Amino acid sequence: MRESRRIMLTVSYDGTAYAGWQRQLNAPSVQAALERALLSLTGEAAAVTGASRTDAGVHALGQAAHFDTRSSIPAEKFSFALNTRLPDDVRVVDARLAAPDFHARYGARGKTYRYQIHNSPHASALYRHQRAHVIPTLDAALMRNAGRDVLGEHDFRAFAAAGCEAKSTVREITEAGLRRDGELIELTVSGRSFLYNMVRILAGSLIYIGMGKLPPDALAAALRSGNRLDLGFTAPAHGLTLMKVRYTAHEEN
Amino acid sequence: MRESRRIMLTVSYDGTAYAGWQRQLNAPSVQAALERALLSLTGEAAAVTGASRTDAGVHALGQAAHFDTRSSIPAEKFSFALNTRLPDDVRVVDARLAAPDFHARYGARGKTYRYQIHNSPHASALYRHQRAHVIPTLDAALMRNAGRDVLGEHDFRAFAAAGCEAKSTVREITEAGLRRDGELIELTVSGRSFLYNMVRILAGSLIYIGMGKLPPDALAAALRSGNRLDLGFTAPAHGLTLMKVRYTAHEEN
Repeated sequence: MRESRRIMLTVSYDGTAYAGWQRQLNAPSVQAALERALLSLTGEAAAVTGASRTDAGVHALGQAAHFDTRSSIPAEKFSFALNTRLPDDVRVVDARLAAPDFHARYGARGKTYRYQIHNSPHASALYRHQRAHVIPTLDAALMRNAGRDVLGEHDFRAFAAAGCEAKSTVREITEAGLRRDGELIELTVSGRSFLYNMVRILAGSLIYIGMGKLPPDALAAALRSGNRLDLGFTAPAHGLTLMKVRYTAHEEN
Repeated sequence: MRESRRIMLTVSYDGTAYAGWQRQLNAPSVQAALERALLSLTGEAAAVTGASRTDAGVHALGQAAHFDTRSSIPAEKFSFALNTRLPDDVRVVDARLAAPDFHARYGARGKTYRYQIHNSPHASALYRHQRAHVIPTLDAALMRNAGRDVLGEHDFRAFAAAGCEAKSTVREITEAGLRRDGELIELTVSGRSFLYNMVRILAGSLIYIGMGKLPPDALAAALRSGNRLDLGFTAPAHGLTLMKVRYTAHEEN
């Protein structure tokens, strides 16, 4: 019998039709789609572990995942072979051999998310599944400045959804950029890891700051108070895309 | 009875679910969706005339259209009122009073289209309905230079689809820009008007030039020969978006 190998995948998906990354009993998930394609390809019932368990409607351009296989398929061929078996809203964009102890979730050293807002009196027809619609004209410069308040290591207790089960709520944000391009406002956030709904609560709070519904220093104040009620709404899932998961160099090669 | 007014609309749509702009007997069209929404709103069976009869799968961010109405609804309220009656893949993003002789199609002084290419070994999950997938790595600088050959007034006979019924095949291209942003290659083309499939044939020919399947001077040669066979394939419809239709200033106000 062949030895088991661990394969790392980079996966992109349109989350619109999925109940999220994680396998569920009665709803379609990206994880189940990948596992089904793997079963069809290798005959093995392999579990696919993702770096981030993205919510229903959330997209990915660079989700990372791993699985183990005893098949003889060359590691880098898995992307092409799986794509012929996957629905067209899920694409494996890279596959490579990983170290036996590589773990897509526990080994992740950083993640980048983007949040897209369609800032216009009317919703977007073309980007309706990728951008959250905000009607009042947002002050992007104000939002950009406010975003800087979350940079660095802080207790992000106020930015955690009610159901958050993290032991510690201390996180480090290494990037919080914001740009406007016509009706599009795009927030880019990087950090080692995030609390549940943290990026969407940050996006919703920045939207409130940009509308004047929260003061420009609301993020800093919420970091001090630790109170979720000092922040804005949880921005809708479909505006969020997982862009990249980072590992230490030797794990990525 | 109220006097008839002519209203100009700016319309954006995701063309994925439509057989094109134009009303058809047994297939959904953007025109029919707008006319149905107008009937529901005003009780009038008004014909909506579009600037461009975009093909099945082609998108629009700035299609222009007009219709006549005797309703008392203020011109600028039509966007909001129609949007509540339209499917979410069609949005009226602007509505205004037009001159009685304004004509969205015959009055158009210029149009801008963009063509998006996903240049990657794997198709895009997230942008699969908006970008044409091209696997071989394209030489964008070569494509950008070649694109300049179509600038100005030329006989574009070679760039016309077989079914083209235009009396003259002379057209003027005022812009042919190309940029690469990672896996995205975006072509922007402006002109007063275009022959049927002209932008898609230009996009397909630039793709062939970028792949080395056509020489860098193929566009210039085809302008001289007038032969469709000297050009590349007709790039798929879903990569194309009508960005803007231009009118003389007094018609736009």
